[in-house]
Amino acid sequence: MLKKILVIHGPNLNLLGEREVDVYGHFTLEEIDAELKKIAKDKGVELDILQSSSEGEIVDKIGSARGQVGAIVINPAGYTHYSVAIRDAIAGVNIPTVEVHLSNIYAREEFRHKSVIAPVATGQIAGFGVESYKLGLQAAINLLK
Amino acid sequence: MLKKILVIHGPNLNLLGEREVDVYGHFTLEEIDAELKKIAKDKGVELDILQSSSEGEIVDKIGSARGQVGAIVINPAGYTHYSVAIRDAIAGVNIPTVEVHLSNIYAREEFRHKSVIAPVATGQIAGFGVESYKLGLQAAINLLK
Amino acid sequence: MLKKILVIHGPNLNLLGEREVDVYGHFTLEEIDAELKKIAKDKGVELDILQSSSEGEIVDKIGSARGQVGAIVINPAGYTHYSVAIRDAIAGVNIPTVEVHLSNIYAREEFRHKSVIAPVATGQIAGFGVESYKLGLQAAINLLK
Amino acid sequence: MLKKILVIHGPNLNLLGEREVDVYGHFTLEEIDAELKKIAKDKGVELDILQSSSEGEIVDKIGSARGQVGAIVINPAGYTHYSVAIRDAIAGVNIPTVEVHLSNIYAREEFRHKSVIAPVATGQIAGFGVESYKLGLQAAINLLK
Amino acid sequence: MLKKILVIHGPNLNLLGEREVDVYGHFTLEEIDAELKKIAKDKGVELDILQSSSEGEIVDKIGSARGQVGAIVINPAGYTHYSVAIRDAIAGVNIPTVEVHLSNIYAREEFRHKSVIAPVATGQIAGFGVESYKLGLQAAINLLK
Amino acid sequence: MLKKILVIHGPNLNLLGEREVDVYGHFTLEEIDAELKKIAKDKGVELDILQSSSEGEIVDKIGSARGQVGAIVINPAGYTHYSVAIRDAIAGVNIPTVEVHLSNIYAREEFRHKSVIAPVATGQIAGFGVESYKLGLQAAINLLK
Amino acid sequence: MLKKILVIHGPNLNLLGEREVDVYGHFTLEEIDAELKKIAKDKGVELDILQSSSEGEIVDKIGSARGQVGAIVINPAGYTHYSVAIRDAIAGVNIPTVEVHLSNIYAREEFRHKSVIAPVATGQIAGFGVESYKLGLQAAINLLK
Amino acid sequence: MLKKILVIHGPNLNLLGEREVDVYGHFTLEEIDAELKKIAKDKGVELDILQSSSEGEIVDKIGSARGQVGAIVINPAGYTHYSVAIRDAIAGVNIPTVEVHLSNIYAREEFRHKSVIAPVATGQIAGFGVESYKLGLQAAINLLK
Amino acid sequence: MLKKILVIHGPNLNLLGEREVDVYGHFTLEEIDAELKKIAKDKGVELDILQSSSEGEIVDKIGSARGQVGAIVINPAGYTHYSVAIRDAIAGVNIPTVEVHLSNIYAREEFRHKSVIAPVATGQIAGFGVESYKLGLQAAINLLK
Amino acid sequence: MLKKILVIHGPNLNLLGEREVDVYGHFTLEEIDAELKKIAKDKGVELDILQSSSEGEIVDKIGSARGQVGAIVINPAGYTHYSVAIRDAIAGVNIPTVEVHLSNIYAREEFRHKSVIAPVATGQIAGFGVESYKLGLQAAINLLK
Amino acid sequence: MLKKILVIHGPNLNLLGEREVDVYGHFTLEEIDAELKKIAKDKGVELDILQSSSEGEIVDKIGSARGQVGAIVINPAGYTHYSVAIRDAIAGVNIPTVEVHLSNIYAREEFRHKSVIAPVATGQIAGFGVESYKLGLQAAINLLK
Amino acid sequence: MLKKILVIHGPNLNLLGEREVDVYGHFTLEEIDAELKKIAKDKGVELDILQSSSEGEIVDKIGSARGQVGAIVINPAGYTHYSVAIRDAIAGVNIPTVEVHLSNIYAREEFRHKSVIAPVATGQIAGFGVESYKLGLQAAINLLK
Repeated sequence: MLKKILVIHGPNLNLLGEREVDVYGHFTLEEIDAELKKIAKDKGVELDILQSSSEGEIVDKIGSARGQVGAIVINPAGYTHYSVAIRDAIAGVNIPTVEVHLSNIYAREEFRHKSVIAPVATGQIAGFGVESYKLGLQAAINLLK
Repeated sequence: MLKKILVIHGPNLNLLGEREVDVYGHFTLEEIDAELKKIAKDKGVELDILQSSSEGEIVDKIGSARGQVGAIVINPAGYTHYSVAIRDAIAGVNIPTVEVHLSNIYAREEFRHKSVIAPVATGQIAGFGVESYKLGLQAAINLLK
Repeated sequence: MLKKILVIHGPNLNLLGEREVDVYGHFTLEEIDAELKKIAKDKGVELDILQSSSEGEIVDKIGSARGQVGAIVINPAGYTHYSVAIRDAIAGVNIPTVEVHLSNIYAREEFRHKSVIAPVATGQIAGFGVESYKLGLQAAINLLK
Repeated sequence: MLKKILVIHGPNLNLLGEREVDVYGHFTLEEIDAELKKIAKDKGVELDILQSSSEGEIVDKIGSARGQVGAIVINPAGYTHYSVAIRDAIAGVNIPTVEVHLSNIYAREEFRHKSVIAPVATGQIAGFGVESYKLGLQAAINLLK
Repeated sequence: MLKKILVIHGPNLNLLGEREVDVYGHFTLEEIDAELKKIAKDKGVELDILQSSSEGEIVDKIGSARGQVGAIVINPAGYTHYSVAIRDAIAGVNIPTVEVHLSNIYAREEFRHKSVIAPVATGQIAGFGVESYKLGLQAAINLLK
Repeated sequence: MLKKILVIHGPNLNLLGEREVDVYGHFTLEEIDAELKKIAKDKGVELDILQSSSEGEIVDKIGSARGQVGAIVINPAGYTHYSVAIRDAIAGVNIPTVEVHLSNIYAREEFRHKSVIAPVATGQIAGFGVESYKLGLQAAINLLK
Repeated sequence: MLKKILVIHGPNLNLLGEREVDVYGHFTLEEIDAELKKIAKDKGVELDILQSSSEGEIVDKIGSARGQVGAIVINPAGYTHYSVAIRDAIAGVNIPTVEVHLSNIYAREEFRHKSVIAPVATGQIAGFGVESYKLGLQAAINLLK
Repeated sequence: MLKKILVIHGPNLNLLGEREVDVYGHFTLEEIDAELKKIAKDKGVELDILQSSSEGEIVDKIGSARGQVGAIVINPAGYTHYSVAIRDAIAGVNIPTVEVHLSNIYAREEFRHKSVIAPVATGQIAGFGVESYKLGLQAAINLLK
Repeated sequence: MLKKILVIHGPNLNLLGEREVDVYGHFTLEEIDAELKKIAKDKGVELDILQSSSEGEIVDKIGSARGQVGAIVINPAGYTHYSVAIRDAIAGVNIPTVEVHLSNIYAREEFRHKSVIAPVATGQIAGFGVESYKLGLQAAINLLK
Repeated sequence: MLKKILVIHGPNLNLLGEREVDVYGHFTLEEIDAELKKIAKDKGVELDILQSSSEGEIVDKIGSARGQVGAIVINPAGYTHYSVAIRDAIAGVNIPTVEVHLSNIYAREEFRHKSVIAPVATGQIAGFGVESYKLGLQAAINLLK
Repeated sequence: MLKKILVIHGPNLNLLGEREVDVYGHFTLEEIDAELKKIAKDKGVELDILQSSSEGEIVDKIGSARGQVGAIVINPAGYTHYSVAIRDAIAGVNIPTVEVHLSNIYAREEFRHKSVIAPVATGQIAGFGVESYKLGLQAAINLLK
Repeated sequence: MLKKILVIHGPNLNLLGEREVDVYGHFTLEEIDAELKKIAKDKGVELDILQSSSEGEIVDKIGSARGQVGAIVINPAGYTHYSVAIRDAIAGVNIPTVEVHLSNIYAREEFRHKSVIAPVATGQIAGFGVESYKLGLQAAINLLK
């Protein structure tokens, strides 16, 4: 059993805590990562964390995760709604994947209601702010078993 | 602060463990409830659990929850996709609500991709089987704070 | 000529005056009923009032109204947008029916713009708060003639 | 408080009582206006009545109503379904507006189910023949208060 | 082999013979049931008949039919077009199910052309009036084998 | 039998022969009218011809045609695709109406494929340039009988 | 009363029993016809049976059936979804028509959910394999009366 | 200049005068052809007339018309709405083509509003019964010049 | 080279500065015109300015601009979204045309995202308040060259 | 292993080289067949070639190919976009099938972008003129193995 | 007040002046930049110019512009129609943004009519070739104030 | 004549042979490239091969191919369905381009049926596994001539 979990933060998430705080909350990405590392340590799993605004980089990261990580936690951010490339990467490596969103994407603009990632993810957690990530990591840890 | 959480299981969920186990898993509703009660006890919150196939009963249960419970965990099952009545009940009582689904509704038939409940829920957790409920209860407990 | 009018309040309307007062106003259902009874008494008609969140109960109430009431005033609330069962009940008993809405459903979410009840109602009154009911009752009384 | 109400009859309504009597009834526009004037006199409000088949004339009439009238009763007739110009005029003057229709537009051709006026009107009354106008005027008078 | 067949009459069907006789014919529900019982007796099968306007009651009836009946004949009436809850109940119990309709739903309003029940039914019979039920029972009896 | 035919040229048709000659041909409106008058004289019918870019003027012209003309020939031009007001005028006066178009509207932009006038016209002739008008007048003369 | 029934098997049905047996079953067309003839003989009606992959031939067969047959049983197969020509033929001869399908077309690809034939048929039977034909013939015999 | 005109009557038109006389009128196809021949003789053109319910036969007839006929008059009947094969044949031979319809297809069912033939025809005449053919032949003769 | 530019203000724009100032800003139409005249004088071009709520008047103004003006600046306001008549006028005169909007129409209601004018305009400027007009005039002056 | 390949040319392809040469090129069907025969001879496979404008004939040809040919190369031409009958034939015989198109159907009219044949074909080659056929035959030969 | 403006040229714009000159004009990107720099110098603002075909690079550039630049001018080119990532970046930094397009995207293919960037931009300028950029920079300078 | 061909493998194709072998086959990308090089050598053409998951890199590669390569073979993989940027790059350089797909994209999920690349490609080959590439290279070589 692989005890490493890949955590991917999609485009613009490096701006967390600064931009649109009413939508995304006051946490910075560093703070979120710190929270996740605390849980990981607690549960005895290792984390590999990537923030990238590049669709290609995310695709390649997932592609190279095969045999390296036991589960993926991904917030595809803006790519959620059209990146078939990321979808195909997830479907291709066949690693259990948890899709997370800080905001409730179903309570926002119509075009955010559709995730092209969701059908190939194991499950989805959305709307709980930084808790989405924490619940997502927990879900991912369960999927390791 | 209200320390009671209302848990609602929608139509057909009483059949869990018997029907379509490849979609919904082998747990029975009793086993799920037992898991939830264990967590609740652990966290010092009280649960009020309802299983009902009646849309009206669910609506009225939510309507009467105002001032009684601090959060709701609901698996609207089949009603997810059309019950504006349940949606209006949730919006009306204005209690933080966690929508949960055993299966990944986005990986199933097209008509299951749309939840009329989601826009008025705080967040949504789907696809992790019985873990969806457990993560959902945890999320609800966080929302109490 | 039947001098009795059936008034039906759909799901969640029992919460009036408490929930979403910016959308639905401050009147409670009891106050609305009192207003309606005053008009009824004034005009010499009798009222039969039902509040129910159960689609089936509303269907059966309408079904049994045949030959008992001369007109129906109904606020189908959340059921407005999908209850073919209620629509069929109204079409089946063939009693003049006034559809009323507290809010202007055409100024709200897209999915509220479509009423499956409207095509079988005699007419529709929407957007005037408690006045919608009062104008609706007046319209219904006119339809008795 | 402005005690004048602007009543607008849209295109073709001058033909009432002659054309399609099964859809619109046997009343002529003069008879409708007489009924409305009776109610107005009764309630102590003044009416300013316009029948026009010209979209531009209706737009300009509404535009000049600002500060002159306390409410508008409008049957936009054929313009109901596409006149963004009239819609913008109503939204622009910000005067409470009651949209009325003689027939139940929701029981007619599909294209009549959509009113571009409704979202900016205070409310809508449809399907009661000449009573639609009378109830509409009553609603408008209530809105004066 | 289970020799009992569950027959479900959905909402408003209790009004048969009275309402819209041009659409649904002159038979009452009692007369239809009598015809069905005659056939059942003839073929040596037992019938369990339910008429209900309550979606929840229909859902629970189907849910409890597992292991009790060998086939279901259901006329979902108004629920045909949106009740995912009833659909899920049928899919859940996995009992051969015959969907019947008195009228030819494909020759009526557009919204009646879509049945959410059909994809989980074994087959569908529509348009033959009371004969739809009789052919449906026959089909159900064949499915017992 | 009324021997007068109303001919209506919609918006921009006064520019014929100058604008977009590849689409509409080299004839001017005067030349078209001359051709029509020749036919009319020949067949012993009178013509009443209107060119107007005003939707309201066209509506009122049609409205006042009742009892005055035996048939209408109309090229609604740009109004073809949205003027419910003109459609209602034609339906209201109930005079046989021939819709003509110089160009083949079905071989042009998608939005020109739909005529809101066609369903209330007796028939439609499109695509033959000035011949469309001449055939249309002939058709109208036949409709007088 | 005409005692002859026309049975039409559309395109590809000659391949039954060989192709896609999981969808259409193991019966050959000859075996189906034998079953139908047995019933026909039993009920004292005559059958006229055509298998054709030619839309035109089916159209002409129906066209010439006027006054010759008392009912039609048709499995339009692939033509079900687009042949307005066959639809017009059925509507034209005005003979009671039963549309049958071996498979449950509503449980297959989206494009098979729409039958252009259904609105002009008396009724439809689908999903019972060879039983669809047998029930269809029975329904047709009832329609003779 | 070719002085021959090809006239094509599509599927079911052989039934004219018998079927649906309220839609298509009382003329038989023979009577229509006689009328057309009279006009042709009068104008000094020759007619080549085909009635066929076979899409392939119509396609091949058009294909072989190249260099033989100077114009085509076609009533594609049911094929109007889907036969890309006939459309391609007309586009391929590049002969001026007049599409005619007895009834006003725009005043009938929604699916009849779309002609796949129209974009490749020179023009379209619809709604004048047998006059549609006569006007169509006249239009075709004009196109010869 | 024509040095005159036609400026057209569509319906309701005479109300600027009074209505919906959060959407359209505090400028009055007179102030906008003054700004435009200043620029025009500066650049040595003449302006011809029309404000009209009448679609027909706008159509005729454009139609008569041929050979008179070298460019058009138009804010079609409400007519933006449906006036094929204005579109046809612009296409017909073939004068370079700049479409301007005070507000960002793409950030407003869905129906405002579609302009039927845009495809025949040279370009479009939207969202900069009164600056939209000033930039638009500048663009138009460039188009003169 | 069957060494015969069935080549089907759909409607209008007999006109190749004459019609629309800018779309389809200058080759005649005979020349294409000659090219294909050369390749076939070279590769030691036999060809069975059919050109037909009759949907039914194509369906029956495919139906009878079972056990006779090892692969099919088909250019369904106009039937590409709606012939479910041909689709069902291909799916029924379960022979590897290569769909070819001379032109790039995705660069033409919208309605040509959808092929109902493609989902049951092994693969598709489009846009290379006569080379499409040659590549298609090569692909078919590969599928024999 | 920040006096720096970020100018972003999206994918393929480095090819300007070479590719599709009929659509995009003969200017090269260097020439456009030179023009913009001239204006910038003239107005006393500084420019930061990026050409990139990488969505991620554009996203990160915008993300890091916060507090550095006072306005953005962006031609998102192909990304206009789907890049929610770029949209989110613009919305996130909350810097006034001018969207520019060389061509009139509303006069091109249907899919180019929709910009996912427009709703978060301050305004949009399209269709004036290189002038679009110059007007856009002017608009951006105005937004600095 | 340029004798070099650019071969582009889009995102995730580096995983071939490992991921989803039932969909994409057992070949690795290296093996495919070896096959292509063999053909190239045979035919005397040079190959320039790129595998990239970065949309921007693919866009820039195509942009710089102008004047360097005589044809392009591209498998856009996930980008097939939305990358207008890649489409614009291909349209911009105006080099004959062959779109290839390993799988039959028309037999997979609905969203894979639409290629935004296809309308600007010369042609498309899909569904033959590694043969798609080989046929594609052959097609590209033919396009060099």
